[in-house]
Amino acid sequence: MAKVLMNKLGKRFLVKDTSKDMHTQFGYFKKEDLKAKNGRIKTNTGKEFAIFDAYFIDLHKKIKRDAQIIPLKDIGLIVSETGVNKKSKVVDAGSGSGALACFLANIAKEVTTYEIREDFIEIVKNNIKFLNLKNVKIKNKNIYDGIDEKNVDLVTLDLPEPWKALESAEKSLKAGGFLVSYSPTIPQVMDFVNEARENRHFTYIKTSEIIEREWEIEGRKVRPRSQAIGHSGFISFVRKI
Amino acid sequence: MAKVLMNKLGKRFLVKDTSKDMHTQFGYFKKEDLKAKNGRIKTNTGKEFAIFDAYFIDLHKKIKRDAQIIPLKDIGLIVSETGVNKKSKVVDAGSGSGALACFLANIAKEVTTYEIREDFIEIVKNNIKFLNLKNVKIKNKNIYDGIDEKNVDLVTLDLPEPWKALESAEKSLKAGGFLVSYSPTIPQVMDFVNEARENRHFTYIKTSEIIEREWEIEGRKVRPRSQAIGHSGFISFVRKI
Amino acid sequence: MAKVLMNKLGKRFLVKDTSKDMHTQFGYFKKEDLKAKNGRIKTNTGKEFAIFDAYFIDLHKKIKRDAQIIPLKDIGLIVSETGVNKKSKVVDAGSGSGALACFLANIAKEVTTYEIREDFIEIVKNNIKFLNLKNVKIKNKNIYDGIDEKNVDLVTLDLPEPWKALESAEKSLKAGGFLVSYSPTIPQVMDFVNEARENRHFTYIKTSEIIEREWEIEGRKVRPRSQAIGHSGFISFVRKI
Amino acid sequence: MAKVLMNKLGKRFLVKDTSKDMHTQFGYFKKEDLKAKNGRIKTNTGKEFAIFDAYFIDLHKKIKRDAQIIPLKDIGLIVSETGVNKKSKVVDAGSGSGALACFLANIAKEVTTYEIREDFIEIVKNNIKFLNLKNVKIKNKNIYDGIDEKNVDLVTLDLPEPWKALESAEKSLKAGGFLVSYSPTIPQVMDFVNEARENRHFTYIKTSEIIEREWEIEGRKVRPRSQAIGHSGFISFVRKI
Repeated sequence: MAKVLMNKLGKRFLVKDTSKDMHTQFGYFKKEDLKAKNGRIKTNTGKEFAIFDAYFIDLHKKIKRDAQIIPLKDIGLIVSETGVNKKSKVVDAGSGSGALACFLANIAKEVTTYEIREDFIEIVKNNIKFLNLKNVKIKNKNIYDGIDEKNVDLVTLDLPEPWKALESAEKSLKAGGFLVSYSPTIPQVMDFVNEARENRHFTYIKTSEIIEREWEIEGRKVRPRSQAIGHSGFISFVRKI
Repeated sequence: MAKVLMNKLGKRFLVKDTSKDMHTQFGYFKKEDLKAKNGRIKTNTGKEFAIFDAYFIDLHKKIKRDAQIIPLKDIGLIVSETGVNKKSKVVDAGSGSGALACFLANIAKEVTTYEIREDFIEIVKNNIKFLNLKNVKIKNKNIYDGIDEKNVDLVTLDLPEPWKALESAEKSLKAGGFLVSYSPTIPQVMDFVNEARENRHFTYIKTSEIIEREWEIEGRKVRPRSQAIGHSGFISFVRKI
Repeated sequence: MAKVLMNKLGKRFLVKDTSKDMHTQFGYFKKEDLKAKNGRIKTNTGKEFAIFDAYFIDLHKKIKRDAQIIPLKDIGLIVSETGVNKKSKVVDAGSGSGALACFLANIAKEVTTYEIREDFIEIVKNNIKFLNLKNVKIKNKNIYDGIDEKNVDLVTLDLPEPWKALESAEKSLKAGGFLVSYSPTIPQVMDFVNEARENRHFTYIKTSEIIEREWEIEGRKVRPRSQAIGHSGFISFVRKI
Repeated sequence: MAKVLMNKLGKRFLVKDTSKDMHTQFGYFKKEDLKAKNGRIKTNTGKEFAIFDAYFIDLHKKIKRDAQIIPLKDIGLIVSETGVNKKSKVVDAGSGSGALACFLANIAKEVTTYEIREDFIEIVKNNIKFLNLKNVKIKNKNIYDGIDEKNVDLVTLDLPEPWKALESAEKSLKAGGFLVSYSPTIPQVMDFVNEARENRHFTYIKTSEIIEREWEIEGRKVRPRSQAIGHSGFISFVRKI
């Protein structure tokens, strides 16, 4: 079981292996301390940290990732608009590094993620293991060619040409089930939404983007951060009818 | 089991009672059709709708609400930043109409929600029943006076003076557990964050606001909607250490 | 000379005619008071207002307008990115109600505005007169067919197919001069920018949208307004080379 | 007279001195070419650039600046909300590097800018000279102690404690004149607005922040830029009554 070290100011370390001393810029923690306690421990130089069993999100923030992963702000909208839950059966494509599939697996009953690139599949496998998830399956298949799973509640797409997955999704989804497409550019959104509109098996719900503004709150220094993420992706929601 | 009627253009009706005909501006649906089928049915005037078992989110969008409820965009960030999941034990205050507590119950193992106003408690009870949730408890207690539950993973606050709940939350949360405060105004955020910073049992993580931009996507009419929600609330995250 | 009545709480009236009493929901102002004084005057019911000569912007906010006029936030970016000033020669099309042409005339040396719809031309003429501007000319011509003015510093377009004005603008602009196109939808922006990119006489500078967030600041009620304008238009800047 | 070199892709050089060859990463331009022509010239390696007389904004983008200057998006709102124009008399404090004072001087009749730090005054003087502005005066005085100019149309403040300038501004402004305060943090805005509200000589108009979203528009790559400025400052508008 991985642990987290966190100090009062938010400095955080993930302890994957408690059988070894852990060295940091604040000094080192003895393995006896790492293993034995939940509570407060100190480095050899006297710096105090809290130590506790890692939460899922502590691990998720440390997964291996290729260039671009979907940010938490966008995962949040997918979860809140679809109401995905313990009983949900989910299909995801393409996996990328598995950030979305793994997050959803933490909530849903089961997740199957489709990916055609073998290098990404290796990353996802490692991430599933790292996160200790038992309900994610990964398939080295092209979702454009079909989805094996039936009666699915939610299909999520992070693909260059998501409209090519409409037919597969339609056959896989339950009536009322959600198809969510995540794309960085507007022409992708246009093509996806227009094709979904022309398909009698889908009702278009909406397309949104999420802008997260982080604030600095410290004494009288209260203001949005100077630096921000300008854009990640547009999220389109359609439902099977 | 409630059902949903949805047509191609996104027009949606919730069918709570399938033992009666359902009248709409599109004509009426016969009770036999409402009861018998998942699939496509027609009104007496020939308008086609899909009918399917309501998803949680279909019901959640129809819960009774007092003036102001937390929007889905904000619920999304709370879920994604905390990683709340099937094993999570959650405490919430104040309930308001229960929108947040009920949403979290759909994901978490159990949720207890504190509310001091009896009129709100009635609303929440009805909403829990309407949503058919079995894992939400509601308490008519002031969270400032303490939290009965221990080893809690997540405490969510939607209170006028959230800093007054810091001590209660501290005693209730597991190490590493999240305390999330949702407030509409900046002075509330300042007071909450400053008091959390001064409390040795909490590490301040961040404060964010979520701006959702909805887009119109229809042929060449591709643009953000003219009307938008300018603001709902600021979301502050701290963790117990 | 029009005057403005403004009270402490921001309630504002424009007095176009000081030869008549002015009736308001706060009571009426006597014509003698309206004519005689700059300073403070009172209604017959004792409500105090400041009275002063109208500023340009007081009048501009009251011009007649068709459905949609460019908001001040967007005019601001056009002014600040082009540095338009007392010496600038400006051409504008289509006039619409003349909000942009008139605003620019308040800053620039001269403005000529092109409009094909005669109903709009009437509105613009009235607005020019109302604003007492001497340096705006209005032409009932299609800018796609050419611009009479030469050595122009700035051309502004608010047109359904702005790319059709590229050739006219190119012949009219001085080297280094700005062409600014204002469009509500992304496909318009795409077509305009792509055609400008293919024209050897233009260098593409940038496309932006401006989001204005208004705040409520009152005691501890300090927060962005709940209601907001979600979108007006995208502003694209190119320069003649 | 400074000139600008600009190529098709937007690469831009300012030529301050046309009596010397100009060396760039694209090769060098001969002084004869720099001096003689407006039009197209080539480097010794055959790269084509347009050359033209610098516009004000070309120079303004190159002024010397201390750490933080007000961005054009924010200057834009100040201009558009106040309607500052050829006849306007403006007072500005503190100058900083003079970016706002100089921009306003390009539009207004005259600008006086107050600054207490002598190192900044040197920067401003150089910038005024560089921009060839004749209508900006700079004063080494604290605006909290009073403003010499009377019948002023617009006072702009970029100060740590702008509320301390309310009394000075009140005595200096014409009735109806604008006082605009630019501050990075919310507590500054709160104190300024609350004090202005308590002063019978001012009417509070509004506080806004401006978010500029830049877009990439290139073929099908059409999307907001990934990187963005998260925040610069809040702009508060009050008027003398």
